[in-house]
Parts: sequence; structure tokens; C-alpha cells
Amino acid sequence: MSISLTILGCGAAAPTVSAQPSGQVLDVHGQLILLDCGEGTQVQLRLRKIRFTQISLICISHLHGDHFFGLPGLLSTFHLLNREKPLTLIGPPGLEVLIRTILKATKTWTCYPLHFLEVPLADGSLVMKNEAFSVFAFPLEHSIETIGFRIEEKQGLRKINAVAVENAQIPRCDLRPLQLGRDIQDAKGTWIPNAQLTFDPKPVIKYAYASDTAFCPAIVPHIRGVDWLYHESTFADSHASLALKTKHSTARDAGKIAALANVKHLLLGHFSIRYADRTVLLREAEEEFSSVQLAHDGLVIRME
Amino acid sequence: MSISLTILGCGAAAPTVSAQPSGQVLDVHGQLILLDCGEGTQVQLRLRKIRFTQISLICISHLHGDHFFGLPGLLSTFHLLNREKPLTLIGPPGLEVLIRTILKATKTWTCYPLHFLEVPLADGSLVMKNEAFSVFAFPLEHSIETIGFRIEEKQGLRKINAVAVENAQIPRCDLRPLQLGRDIQDAKGTWIPNAQLTFDPKPVIKYAYASDTAFCPAIVPHIRGVDWLYHESTFADSHASLALKTKHSTARDAGKIAALANVKHLLLGHFSIRYADRTVLLREAEEEFSSVQLAHDGLVIRME
Repeated sequence: MSISLTILGCGAAAPTVSAQPSGQVLDVHGQLILLDCGEGTQVQLRLRKIRFTQISLICISHLHGDHFFGLPGLLSTFHLLNREKPLTLIGPPGLEVLIRTILKATKTWTCYPLHFLEVPLADGSLVMKNEAFSVFAFPLEHSIETIGFRIEEKQGLRKINAVAVENAQIPRCDLRPLQLGRDIQDAKGTWIPNAQLTFDPKPVIKYAYASDTAFCPAIVPHIRGVDWLYHESTFADSHASLALKTKHSTARDAGKIAALANVKHLLLGHFSIRYADRTVLLREAEEEFSSVQLAHDGLVIRME
Repeated sequence: MSISLTILGCGAAAPTVSAQPSGQVLDVHGQLILLDCGEGTQVQLRLRKIRFTQISLICISHLHGDHFFGLPGLLSTFHLLNREKPLTLIGPPGLEVLIRTILKATKTWTCYPLHFLEVPLADGSLVMKNEAFSVFAFPLEHSIETIGFRIEEKQGLRKINAVAVENAQIPRCDLRPLQLGRDIQDAKGTWIPNAQLTFDPKPVIKYAYASDTAFCPAIVPHIRGVDWLYHESTFADSHASLALKTKHSTARDAGKIAALANVKHLLLGHFSIRYADRTVLLREAEEEFSSVQLAHDGLVIRME
């Protein structure tokens, strides 16, 4: 069991032969979440040998084409593959009407249940939760309504302190309640606080996805302390005015946000095609924050 | 000056790493026509080094995703590239509303004029004509309304018979009227029929695109004698019942249509992914027609 992130595309705007548009897959203990779905995402999923029929959730950040033009095709392919498993889509208002309009026009129906969760007010609160993870949505600052996502692994069980449990002569039937955090009574009827018999569980992994956005310190409370932050870095300092105009970020902006939020690692992506050599982006972000990595199509990051 | 066809994709249904969905470019003396636009077409255009900003016309055969899911992205890219040249789209009813709905939802406008020519009744008649070619639309037989296209090069000028012109002492100023097919008077005032002073122009190149369709002899009058016929051949004989059920053709069906229409060459395409080796399709079509070629992604056919 593990958590990993696969970058399918980290190019900005129009796709090219060498730069796929936005798309990435977060694998949380075998449950696959697709974050954005630019044109060609289904081919990238095949290329990266991801068992994409296992995708149970698709999160769309906003309705710019480079973030969702691959979605109608992927939904159609799921139908062609006789998918039965339900699929949930989280995205901005308008997503459901648009997708259903396209499917209707193409006389395509889906042989699997399709649930839309539109987020009219991404205020940082929980949007969905299942047995493996929780998804929180927060607002980004872009030219159209755009959502950032934070995904948190489900908290695991508390770990049994074997020595303490033996010393207190706790019967086996009480171990499960202990793992769940309950206090229990010993043989003499004395209540023992849970913390004396267990250790804290492994910290949960948290991942945040912020694309596309201008420099926006307001997102800091929503991404504070995450293990990995993917933050767009469309431009270098040399095009800072263009970043302001188009409501995108520079790599330095991304570095500043990572530092303010005290995240563990920063992953830069959503690169303008104008930077054949992206080390300038890495260098400028590193002037603001210590642990920075450049995304590239096909990159896999293991989070534990 | 020449006419050439570049196959961008000839796979049926869902795109894969090795089989792109439908898309092809016909270059008529430098004027580019895109026939269908499956997901990923814009990347294929770049890969094949086609100057795709020169596309002036896009013909969409029908509203199944594997034939047009690349269109919204391509139109957006034209905008990002600051296209100014008008673009004409020919397709079935519903195309314009659908595309404009998608562009509106993505807050994308086009900085270039976009003209839709929807073909409510594809009866074989002329749909558009410009200085280089004419486009005719005819009905195919598929599970949804589907259009076949025949594109004809514009007729060239008649060729001057230099010997006859000299013998008749025709002045230079009369050569252009002769090229245009007019009869003229000689120095004595005698009318000379054009045919005595000129040769027929080079025969025009005709190309027909028939995808997707069941076996449909009704299309024969619309494709008779074309230089090249691209006809879908989704299945081999072994899956003939599936072809019937899904309103697609077998390679043998395509061969029969080519023979009935007495075309010069047949190009097979729109292959089901189940045939890793497509020579079975070639062989079965060749049992019905002599000049058959298998399409493949990247194939270029020069027509003169």
C-alpha cells in the first residue's frame, strides 16, 4: 500500500508533441484520482501503463480547455470498455451541463453511474470522503472560476504499544478498540487512557494541487504543511508582467507560497512552452524555498 | 503545385498509443482541408509537420467523439496562435450549437471568423466552392447522421495547341480566351472552334472520404470514378455480423463499393484495434478490387 503521483502532462495552453496539457493521477492505496484531464489524457494513461479503469474520481480544476478537453473522450472510452463502476466528477459549476450536452450530442450514454459534485463555493471545506481519502476544495485566483484541491489520506489506526499492553494484561479482544482510540478498563476495572497503551498512527499524507492561479497567499491556510504541493509556475521572473496579466504564477511565486505554507516539497508544473530549458524556473523557485522539483511528463513521485 | 493526403489517424473508436482516431489533411495546391478531427489531432498535425494554421476548411463527418473530440482544442489553439484567417466548418446539424456551447463554457472566443455550414440534407450536391476546390456532401449509412465528402480540384485551363495556333496565325491576345474555352475568329473573320486550337485540360483530381458507414451501394453515384476513395473498413469478414450490428463496413464491403464505383484507388482505414496485423483486411478487400492500400498514421499519398 502506498501513495504515488504520476504526471501525465505539465504543459500550459496548447498541447504539443513534447508537452502534454494538464493531467495527473494520484494513487491512494490503489484508488486512482485523476486531477485535470487535458486533451490526450487517455492516451497518456495508456502510455504510462496506468490501470485507468480503476479511476474512481476525476477532479477538474476549471473549464479551460487544456484542463478538461480530454474528458469527453475518456468518459466515452469508459463506456466502450463496458465500465460498470461508478465515477465521481468534482469540478466548477457548469461542468455537468457541459459534459452531458456533449455526451447527448454524440448520442453517447454511459453504462456506468456518473455522479457530478459541482463546487459552487470552494471555501476549503470537505467535498467528498471515502474509505481511502478525503478531498477538500479551495479557491484559486485565475481568469475564470478555478478550484484547488487538497487530498488527504484517511487516518490509519493507532499502533499498539506491545510492552504496555502486556504489562497491563490487556486481553486480545480489547486490541481493536485500542487501535480505534478508545480508553479501556483493565482486569481490576481501572480505566486506562488510550495514550498509555498505544502510539500515534503514522501521519497521513497530504497532497495539494494548485493549477492555474495567480500568486495568491489566501490559499496558504488550505495547503499548510502538506507533504507535496503541485503549484503552477507558468512563467519565469523575466515574464512576471505576463503572469500578472494572465493570472498565472511565476516559479518564484510558487516558491514563496510553498515557504509561507511550510509544505514539505514543492513540485513545479504548468510550464509555458517558451522555456525549452526549465532550470531557470527551478533556480528562481529555489531562491524562495528549499525543496523544489520540476515536474515532467511521466514523472512518478512516491509519497511514502 | 500538387494534391496530397496525409493520414493523421485511422483507428476506430477509442484512441490508443499506437492508433490515433480519425483525422486527415488534404492539401489542394496549398489549401489545407482537415477531414475529421479526433482527439489529439492538433498534436498529430504538429508531429507530421503540417502548417496547420493554413487549414481553411474543416469537414466533420459526424458527431461521434472519435471524429471530432479534437476540434474544440484545435479551435482554441488557433485563437492562442492569433489566427486571423477565416475558418469554415462543414458538418452535420448540431455541430455549431455544440462547438459554440463548448467555447462559451470555456470563456474562449475566437479572434478569427468562424463560419459553420451545416448540411441538413447531404444529397450529393455542392456545399462549397473556392478558387482551388469544390466540396460535395453525400449521405452515409451509420448509427447517427453521417456525411461523406467528395472534394474535386478546380478544373484547370485548356491547353494551347501551339502548332494549330501558329498555323492559324492566332494573335497572342486571343490565347487567354482560348484557354477559357471560347471559339475565336481568325484574321479573315472565320470562326474556329476552340477544340481545333486547344487540348483538354488535365483531368481534375477527385477524392472521396467515406467514414463511418455500413455497406451502402447508394453512395456509388457520389464517388464514381474518383482517383482515391478512403472507405472505412473497421472489420474483417470474421466480424461481419458486428459490422452489420454497428453499421460499419468490412474491408470486403469497401472493396465491393470501390469496384461498383469504378474508382482508381481504394484506401482502407478506420480499423478496429483488434487487428494487430491488418493484412487480412487488405487481402479481403483485394478479393473484390484490384488497387487497394492500407492507411497508416503518417501515410502521405501524392495524387499527381
